[in-house]
Amino acid sequence: MLNQKNNDNFLGCDQSLPESKVVLFGAPFDSTTSYRPGTRFGPNAIRNEFYGIETYSPYQDKDLSDYCVFDSGDLDLRFGDSESAITQIENAARDILALDKLPFLLGGEHLVTLGCVRAAYKKFPDLHILHFDAHADLRNDYLGMKLSHACVIRRCHELLGNDRIFQFGIRSGDKSEFEYAALHTYMNKYNLDTLTEVLHALQGKPVYLTIDLDVLDPSVFPGTGTPEPGGLNFLELLDGVMRITRLLDVVACDLNELSPHYDPSGISTVTACKMLREILISLCSKE
Amino acid sequence: MLNQKNNDNFLGCDQSLPESKVVLFGAPFDSTTSYRPGTRFGPNAIRNEFYGIETYSPYQDKDLSDYCVFDSGDLDLRFGDSESAITQIENAARDILALDKLPFLLGGEHLVTLGCVRAAYKKFPDLHILHFDAHADLRNDYLGMKLSHACVIRRCHELLGNDRIFQFGIRSGDKSEFEYAALHTYMNKYNLDTLTEVLHALQGKPVYLTIDLDVLDPSVFPGTGTPEPGGLNFLELLDGVMRITRLLDVVACDLNELSPHYDPSGISTVTACKMLREILISLCSKE
Amino acid sequence: MLNQKNNDNFLGCDQSLPESKVVLFGAPFDSTTSYRPGTRFGPNAIRNEFYGIETYSPYQDKDLSDYCVFDSGDLDLRFGDSESAITQIENAARDILALDKLPFLLGGEHLVTLGCVRAAYKKFPDLHILHFDAHADLRNDYLGMKLSHACVIRRCHELLGNDRIFQFGIRSGDKSEFEYAALHTYMNKYNLDTLTEVLHALQGKPVYLTIDLDVLDPSVFPGTGTPEPGGLNFLELLDGVMRITRLLDVVACDLNELSPHYDPSGISTVTACKMLREILISLCSKE
Amino acid sequence: MLNQKNNDNFLGCDQSLPESKVVLFGAPFDSTTSYRPGTRFGPNAIRNEFYGIETYSPYQDKDLSDYCVFDSGDLDLRFGDSESAITQIENAARDILALDKLPFLLGGEHLVTLGCVRAAYKKFPDLHILHFDAHADLRNDYLGMKLSHACVIRRCHELLGNDRIFQFGIRSGDKSEFEYAALHTYMNKYNLDTLTEVLHALQGKPVYLTIDLDVLDPSVFPGTGTPEPGGLNFLELLDGVMRITRLLDVVACDLNELSPHYDPSGISTVTACKMLREILISLCSKE
Amino acid sequence: MLNQKNNDNFLGCDQSLPESKVVLFGAPFDSTTSYRPGTRFGPNAIRNEFYGIETYSPYQDKDLSDYCVFDSGDLDLRFGDSESAITQIENAARDILALDKLPFLLGGEHLVTLGCVRAAYKKFPDLHILHFDAHADLRNDYLGMKLSHACVIRRCHELLGNDRIFQFGIRSGDKSEFEYAALHTYMNKYNLDTLTEVLHALQGKPVYLTIDLDVLDPSVFPGTGTPEPGGLNFLELLDGVMRITRLLDVVACDLNELSPHYDPSGISTVTACKMLREILISLCSKE
Amino acid sequence: MLNQKNNDNFLGCDQSLPESKVVLFGAPFDSTTSYRPGTRFGPNAIRNEFYGIETYSPYQDKDLSDYCVFDSGDLDLRFGDSESAITQIENAARDILALDKLPFLLGGEHLVTLGCVRAAYKKFPDLHILHFDAHADLRNDYLGMKLSHACVIRRCHELLGNDRIFQFGIRSGDKSEFEYAALHTYMNKYNLDTLTEVLHALQGKPVYLTIDLDVLDPSVFPGTGTPEPGGLNFLELLDGVMRITRLLDVVACDLNELSPHYDPSGISTVTACKMLREILISLCSKE
Repeated sequence: MLNQKNNDNFLGCDQSLPESKVVLFGAPFDSTTSYRPGTRFGPNAIRNEFYGIETYSPYQDKDLSDYCVFDSGDLDLRFGDSESAITQIENAARDILALDKLPFLLGGEHLVTLGCVRAAYKKFPDLHILHFDAHADLRNDYLGMKLSHACVIRRCHELLGNDRIFQFGIRSGDKSEFEYAALHTYMNKYNLDTLTEVLHALQGKPVYLTIDLDVLDPSVFPGTGTPEPGGLNFLELLDGVMRITRLLDVVACDLNELSPHYDPSGISTVTACKMLREILISLCSKE
Repeated sequence: MLNQKNNDNFLGCDQSLPESKVVLFGAPFDSTTSYRPGTRFGPNAIRNEFYGIETYSPYQDKDLSDYCVFDSGDLDLRFGDSESAITQIENAARDILALDKLPFLLGGEHLVTLGCVRAAYKKFPDLHILHFDAHADLRNDYLGMKLSHACVIRRCHELLGNDRIFQFGIRSGDKSEFEYAALHTYMNKYNLDTLTEVLHALQGKPVYLTIDLDVLDPSVFPGTGTPEPGGLNFLELLDGVMRITRLLDVVACDLNELSPHYDPSGISTVTACKMLREILISLCSKE
Repeated sequence: MLNQKNNDNFLGCDQSLPESKVVLFGAPFDSTTSYRPGTRFGPNAIRNEFYGIETYSPYQDKDLSDYCVFDSGDLDLRFGDSESAITQIENAARDILALDKLPFLLGGEHLVTLGCVRAAYKKFPDLHILHFDAHADLRNDYLGMKLSHACVIRRCHELLGNDRIFQFGIRSGDKSEFEYAALHTYMNKYNLDTLTEVLHALQGKPVYLTIDLDVLDPSVFPGTGTPEPGGLNFLELLDGVMRITRLLDVVACDLNELSPHYDPSGISTVTACKMLREILISLCSKE
Repeated sequence: MLNQKNNDNFLGCDQSLPESKVVLFGAPFDSTTSYRPGTRFGPNAIRNEFYGIETYSPYQDKDLSDYCVFDSGDLDLRFGDSESAITQIENAARDILALDKLPFLLGGEHLVTLGCVRAAYKKFPDLHILHFDAHADLRNDYLGMKLSHACVIRRCHELLGNDRIFQFGIRSGDKSEFEYAALHTYMNKYNLDTLTEVLHALQGKPVYLTIDLDVLDPSVFPGTGTPEPGGLNFLELLDGVMRITRLLDVVACDLNELSPHYDPSGISTVTACKMLREILISLCSKE
Repeated sequence: MLNQKNNDNFLGCDQSLPESKVVLFGAPFDSTTSYRPGTRFGPNAIRNEFYGIETYSPYQDKDLSDYCVFDSGDLDLRFGDSESAITQIENAARDILALDKLPFLLGGEHLVTLGCVRAAYKKFPDLHILHFDAHADLRNDYLGMKLSHACVIRRCHELLGNDRIFQFGIRSGDKSEFEYAALHTYMNKYNLDTLTEVLHALQGKPVYLTIDLDVLDPSVFPGTGTPEPGGLNFLELLDGVMRITRLLDVVACDLNELSPHYDPSGISTVTACKMLREILISLCSKE
Repeated sequence: MLNQKNNDNFLGCDQSLPESKVVLFGAPFDSTTSYRPGTRFGPNAIRNEFYGIETYSPYQDKDLSDYCVFDSGDLDLRFGDSESAITQIENAARDILALDKLPFLLGGEHLVTLGCVRAAYKKFPDLHILHFDAHADLRNDYLGMKLSHACVIRRCHELLGNDRIFQFGIRSGDKSEFEYAALHTYMNKYNLDTLTEVLHALQGKPVYLTIDLDVLDPSVFPGTGTPEPGGLNFLELLDGVMRITRLLDVVACDLNELSPHYDPSGISTVTACKMLREILISLCSKE
């Protein structure tokens, strides 16, 4: 199922799959996007842009080219068939996890997370989710559909149960979602103020990190389907994510909701790439 | 099912549904779009823009404001659930046809046509389709999906059978589609050269007119998901369509594949509006 | 004069005018804009976009759909005839105030404020103005014209007199405007540092709240005619406005200078919508 | 009144006003634009772009740099005060005509033509107008305003009377405008088919040439306020205009309705520049 | 020198270099562009977009996937060092020609042609050039630089001599270029009217085909550095090029001057891809 | 060499060169830009936009129109010939310095700084450089080229030697650049935290101030070739620059890397203009 031929487009190592600690794969899917579609173009935009950025991180004083990241390319997903798409994603993540590697999924809309979480949960029954997002994504259904980007964390909660999901930066949703969060997840609205406590609480647990890039303020990340003013700036998100990758046991990860066509200046794609570079270096360089 | 409250957004008559000969309804759906999504924004863009154009047609020397067109608004369709979307569209068209009115569907992607054709076919078993498009839309499936915008005319053919579908302006498809057309439809590649003969052949038949606006050249209609150079100019399409509405018995109609975000100049939306105005005047003014 | 038919475009209540506490109306006017025109498209952009945002506010833990806001639609204003436009706006605001409701004007360029202030001043002779803007708008005339968006607060001052106008966030103007402010208005340059004192001083007074959205930093609100770097971020403005609506007696309000075409990413319109939602909830939910 | 200092921005001669046969001046005015404003940016866009195009015309085998064109720069017009703007334009044109030079006005919206026509009519009582446009511009008023870009040719007709105005390419207007044209002007709808006869009829008459660039098809000229599909292509317009400048006695001229912000590709501005170059060379090189 | 690893990005055959008749290579270079730069993004845009278009040509009734085209990827060229860039291009073309394959160069600015012509001329001393362009490109120097996109055909003429270069569609240049053409090349201004004669004259000669895509009208190809109104439409260029590839002995080829950022609608890139598909099929399928 | 005729385009004084303390000149050059070109359009965009902003600074309570700034216009530089371009810039700066005036260079890409630094260094052998940038610009070469925008500060270091260059806001580069900085320059990564100390250390020294505007965060300055998230906001940069111009002896200055086409909202150009206004007022008003 997994493409075992490295994607030359991606900057980084030329080595083969076995030497890589992290395996990238893309899910160019946006069929349930309720507002402005276009995240299907996200993974390709990131790969194209990655050539334009430095491999060296001054923040970590490490260079991505010193590590090996295998890029398995994009999955061929059917637009309009959410269940099959999620299954394909789950299978790819399962294959990567079976090799004891860390799957790193590039969305696509946020619904793609569900496939990767399913695979990670099967391998790590004690899985916890760290969720960065402007939106709660906790609806039971959206216009009657249970598989929607607006419901993805609700579906994850059904899988993992209470006290396993930690949400940060949330500033939009309907009333029922915030009520649901009060009962079932840990939600830090607007910012990352309580991240330190959460980091303590999750020591030693297997962690799934899912980043909906619209957690960032639209000023720095306008290229997304549902921008929400009042978000994080780049350095706040970078700092939070670095603390997580450094201190916790991240077993799978995704970065999603880049919709490049809505940002003619291209700064959203650059921002996604830089965040990706920092996370990859941090994951790869960890002992 | 049908919204019986007139949509104030649409220029035209203030009268109630009973007095209208044509009933507009929108299907803002683009979940199976394989390339660039965004036709979901088409119906709303057309309604907003319609305020900016004249109601008088110098081509026909008639004024749309002298006729009554009821705008039933947009259907609430589920992104990512094609079968349910098509059923909703079929039901709306069925309701309009049951009132002996002409349903005029605004897409959305071309797949929406299938719902409206199903309803028209149930009322008019001898239905024929006149199809303007850059693409053949005759695939059996697209990545395994039978309900895809790339397969919509194939699905219609399964319903109507041979010698019922007439295609014009086609200039793109895979080889199998052109082979299929040779056996099952009448296809006029690139242009409208044989339209006169077709008009003769279809005298007195009930006709479904479906216009994928990408039949136009991208120079005049860039705002679409899959632009194809080498198409018709505006006056060529207008002339063809006017001959059809004047000479044939059009029982249902659709206009689709406007994707306004891809055209920052707005000329694609203006073009769609003007084509809509001309067709509405022609249909309404017919004895 | 006032359109008594609710505008279906606007999300919210379906009830009739009598049940509403706040009445929205739009003034799509930008004829005196000296730099980049386009605010005429502001009210329509806000209405279209409002469908895409949640009605629930996590900031206030209240839902707009629990209240009734009547949208009277846009006034038909003559481009190029400022005096008649202002009179139409004044008449509409007067009608709303006569019903003991709160007029909420959507611009349009900032000059539209003058019409609404005139109506409010006639009903509330002790009216005070709270003015958020990047620009002082205190010129006596602009190229000889007294009715210009660059002069609107000067015109308001002529009506209300000294010590009635409080300006925040101002960071642009000619020298004479700042000198005029020193003598006649209370001006808090750049930010909201002195808002607390002003809130104390205005307890119990009737307040007109006028928000030129260019008070925001261009990074979060690029879609405006005259962007000025060095402005407020979204949360700073939201906090300031919430304190005003909660603590003071706001009798009329406007939100203006969204020029959506200059921001292809759409974040400016989303920002305007979210600010509108928060103010409406705050005004409607007040005892 | 007339700026007698040459505008260095404009490519061409360095000589002083006396040696020039044609005098350019800009009217960056768009206050009555009913739909999309922005033609105020037209003259500046043309001047900036003119640097990028060749001065040599292969069509005429002549070089603009061999002639002298004086560019008087832009008038300082008041946005929102149409009458004063038209008067300023009339005065500038009058000054140029008083020097026995040919005024060439760059709009701005089409209303600016009225000022220049008034001046030309005072000097040439037998003035005839050749009018290229998509729109009839023959309304009596627009929302009650008599000075509107939609009424400009009607105002000109009031000045000149019947049988003096020849309209080409017209394809939009309300019914009354076409009825008015049937009684008072000579109108060639859609194209230039009857230009040859008109050229014969106007031999020896003083001619005012006014070109609303939206007479071109939106495919080649999308950057305008009110694009109308079904227009002329570049070579058709060029050919028509060249025949006029060569065969008739053009005494004043204008080129208007470029709205550059609506065309991010810039082809509309290039098209305006090339048309300007060709007309200037033709006018200057005439014996 | 030549990258012997196939570029997976390019749709087509998976076979190795030996089986290919045509070898693609890109030259993302635009350092001498005098007006709007950006053709460096051309080759990558074409490769990305090629996934979205069909491999089957209805015009030729053949499928590109039935042939083998090797894509050698882009050369790493130094921005700002024209001589070294041309040498690298020459070397790559030489390597391809040494394998008895046809080099197909994707620009970049038109200057890149010089490198490929040098290599072809060394192998085929009787080389003739067929040149499609809006611009003559015959200057001796541009601001003192001899290696400029505005001089590239002049440099080719110095190599090949008189009566070897045939130019079509030319509609811009300075006077000296047209005078130079009259003495040294065969120039068909504006269109392809004399192509038939040229095809007869060049029977059996080795032909280099260079297509500057700005020969197309800006309406269909706005995404280029120096658009020139009055050009060919897509079908005219396609027809001309097909006659050449079918009837003449094309030994090397290039397609250049796509500058994708200037066309947000993307139709220019689609047009380039479709032209590329047609030429590749025609060259590959030739006996 | 220096254009001694004032550029009318630039707002400000009408006086002649002798009365000016600061002389502006533009270097529209971007031939070595490795990523997205377009800074060649920077100087012209700044001049055009400068008309739209106020001449009065509320930050300094001074008005630019009270001082005299001579704008010498743009140099005619050869695209693709870096050495000659730098020499032309050096000569222009030398001429300005010879008049005991302060040269203010508008880029263009950052490489243009080298020419101006060379001239300043010849007059002021004790020259120190204050460098604001997102990028270190300390590479020895870029793809073998020593004259590249990525190497410009390295070239300056070769001229001035150790302990003369102070870098602020740096957040991108390859590892070797940061290692080089550790040995040869003073680098304050990310922000301006150590500016106070540097101001003390440089008292009385001749200072060259070079501002690559990409030191700003992309949210406020998206219109640049290589945006880097995590930068300064406008007020932080303004404050830093004001402290420098007020406290140190600035003898030459440049502002570069505005690439206006990448920012359709225009806020980047406004930001550049406002920064320019503040620096000019500060330099001119200094005793």
